[in-house]
Amino acid sequence: MFWLLFSIFLLACFAAGATGGLFPPGPWYRDLNKPSWTPPDWLFPVAWTILYVCMSVAGARAALSPDNALAMALWSLQIALNGLWTPVFFGLKRIKLGMFVLAGLWLSVAATIYALFQVDLIAGLLFSPYLVWVTVAGALNLSVWRLNPDEANKRAQAAT
Amino acid sequence: MFWLLFSIFLLACFAAGATGGLFPPGPWYRDLNKPSWTPPDWLFPVAWTILYVCMSVAGARAALSPDNALAMALWSLQIALNGLWTPVFFGLKRIKLGMFVLAGLWLSVAATIYALFQVDLIAGLLFSPYLVWVTVAGALNLSVWRLNPDEANKRAQAAT
Repeated sequence: MFWLLFSIFLLACFAAGATGGLFPPGPWYRDLNKPSWTPPDWLFPVAWTILYVCMSVAGARAALSPDNALAMALWSLQIALNGLWTPVFFGLKRIKLGMFVLAGLWLSVAATIYALFQVDLIAGLLFSPYLVWVTVAGALNLSVWRLNPDEANKRAQAAT
Repeated sequence: MFWLLFSIFLLACFAAGATGGLFPPGPWYRDLNKPSWTPPDWLFPVAWTILYVCMSVAGARAALSPDNALAMALWSLQIALNGLWTPVFFGLKRIKLGMFVLAGLWLSVAATIYALFQVDLIAGLLFSPYLVWVTVAGALNLSVWRLNPDEANKRAQAAT
């Protein structure tokens, strides 16, 4: 049962992560001003693959534990927000809106970790690197906003 | 606790559903050949709003039930696939790939209904209209593919 659950959660992760392949960082992203500490492009799929495996193990462990209601609801919320950021940022090129999605993702991941620790210690630990990575992604999104104010405003106005 | 869980699942639904507002059907979709039974544009947000409420009640009920592991894992999978279709179809205008996403969504929704019925009769019933609607959406996606072969092939080739 564990491996079936793990596979289902992993499929959910890859459905969210597929947006990374479908809306890749193109010339628009390359030409943006970015902070000196921007991670190289190749690191993103590597980090996400490791995180997705950890998230899926955590999900399967929590699913098999009693009193998992809050953890399971929040697992669903974070994966829905996870899949939303890439189409917003790389698809629509909306830097500000991407920041709001990431803020929501950060909060939902933090809440999921809290709920997982109530259910299963290992699940909570496995989810924690995810929050570190979303923090890095959020800092990067914020820096890109600050360093490219015209681009951030242009897209926000074009959308209204 | 029920209402907190309901709210979290509803937020997950609206995160997935936000793609409908962010990637709206524009001139490209209007100009496609569509079958005579195509639902009017206004019906889509109405149907999805009702379905999202039903899905969230079902999610909260199942989360509070024992032995919910499979139902919860599948709830997460279907919401991740739900949020993927709109960016693929309306964002990337990839009709064939949209059909594959919808096929995956259909299978995951059918599996979720099966799992929910094992856990809670009402949750299973509340999820069932969703499968009907995804069947309609899938038939529409397939018809659009058949009725616009050049457009479907063009986008598939451009992406490779």
